Order: sequence, then structure tokens, then C-alpha cells
Amino acid sequence: MNQIISVESLWQKIKFAENGLIPAIAQSIETKEILMLAYMNQESLIKTLQTGKIHYWSRSRQKIWLKGETSGHLQFLEQIYLDCDGDTLLLLIKQIGPACHTGKPNCFFQQINFSKDLSLPEEIK
Amino acid sequence: MNQIISVESLWQKIKFAENGLIPAIAQSIETKEILMLAYMNQESLIKTLQTGKIHYWSRSRQKIWLKGETSGHLQFLEQIYLDCDGDTLLLLIKQIGPACHTGKPNCFFQQINFSKDLSLPEEIK
Repeated sequence: MNQIISVESLWQKIKFAENGLIPAIAQSIETKEILMLAYMNQESLIKTLQTGKIHYWSRSRQKIWLKGETSGHLQFLEQIYLDCDGDTLLLLIKQIGPACHTGKPNCFFQQINFSKDLSLPEEIK
Repeated sequence: MNQIISVESLWQKIKFAENGLIPAIAQSIETKEILMLAYMNQESLIKTLQTGKIHYWSRSRQKIWLKGETSGHLQFLEQIYLDCDGDTLLLLIKQIGPACHTGKPNCFFQQINFSKDLSLPEEIK
């Protein structure tokens, strides 16, 4: 069974990495598909909890990133979970439009055909 | 629609972080629940593809970690996906027993009650 923890307790349990970030998995609460993985810092997590709209930390732009601010493809927080050792978040969300910047519904559209082809990387052949 | 990519193509597209690791989300192919997030290096990914049993890199023990080696709670690879920008893996797996070391079915059992309590962390109060 799930344990319900308070936000106050969250701040005690959460472990941001040395770079101040924690990975956050976004899963559709409707379809259960994994939409994307991105990173949050403390400020983006606070903004997410305060507004109900998912804010990440953009590692490429080095700034807070309201998901969908430009595209309109917002993500609304329905449920949020912290994992057993406090270093990963799971977000159950309602996604407006496609989650991926490519226009695909989710970011995991490259399926690796590993059943027949077990070639090794060039550098260790 | 999904794109099917070869393992050879995977080695060109995948982007390990500076520490040599990539996050891997493990999702049950049967229930669609998110079981855990852990990290792989190139060697653990090769072992996973070669054996069909999920191998991670243990950051605490700094060694290859065959999930379930001690507990028997193995994970069998059914499908594997690379995300749009090549820096996250999604594993669709069959899980033997509970996924979490606590004995819970998955690692995300701490649900944060954010609807009423928006307390800020001590250091920024």
C-alpha cells in the first residue's frame, strides 16, 4: 500500500543530486504510458506543487522550464510520488497535446531491435 | 508510430552522461506500473542485451549489478526504448517478485499529499 507523506516530509526525504537536480518521470494518468523523463531542481518542484503545472529545470538552457509554455502542451499534476531512496520522482499527469518536442505523443518512440543483432560498440569490438 | 532501430544504431545515438551513466526506467509490461529507476553504464547495457536479464550499474557499490542476483527478484527484458534525445532508456520488463528492496512491488510507494500542504523547505522559508 502507498504511504501518504506531507510536503514538509518531502523536503526531509528528497535527495537532489550534487548538481541540485532530481530526475522526474512523467507518466500519463490516463493511459499509463511513459511520456518523458526530465529534471527538476528545488525551485521547479516548488513551482510545480504551487501551480499544479509541471515545471522542469532545462539543463540546456539552464533555467526553469514551464513545460508547454511555448507550445501550449502543458502538463497538469495529478499525483506525485517519491521513490524508496528519495532520489527519483514519479509524476502522474494529464498531458495536453503531444509530450515530445518532435510532435510524437511521447519521447520513447525509438524501439531497439535487440533480439537478432547484438553488435558491440565500435570502441570495444 | 515507433521507429525500430538496430543495436548498431543504438551505439551511435545513445548519450551517456559525463559519469558514463544513463537513467533507465523499468516499467512492467504486464501492469504498466513504473517499478523503479536505476542507472546503466555501457557494460551493464551490453550484458542486459546479451542475456535478457537486466543489469544496472550500482552507484553505491560502484559495480555491475545483476538485478535480483541475491534476492532472486530478476527482471527480464521484453522491450527497450531510447528517448528522443538519446539520454534515457525505457525498459519494458517481466518482474519476478517485488521490484523494490523494501519488499514493496515497486519503489514509488511514497505519495506526496500536495493538495493542502504547500509548506516550503526550511532553508527558503
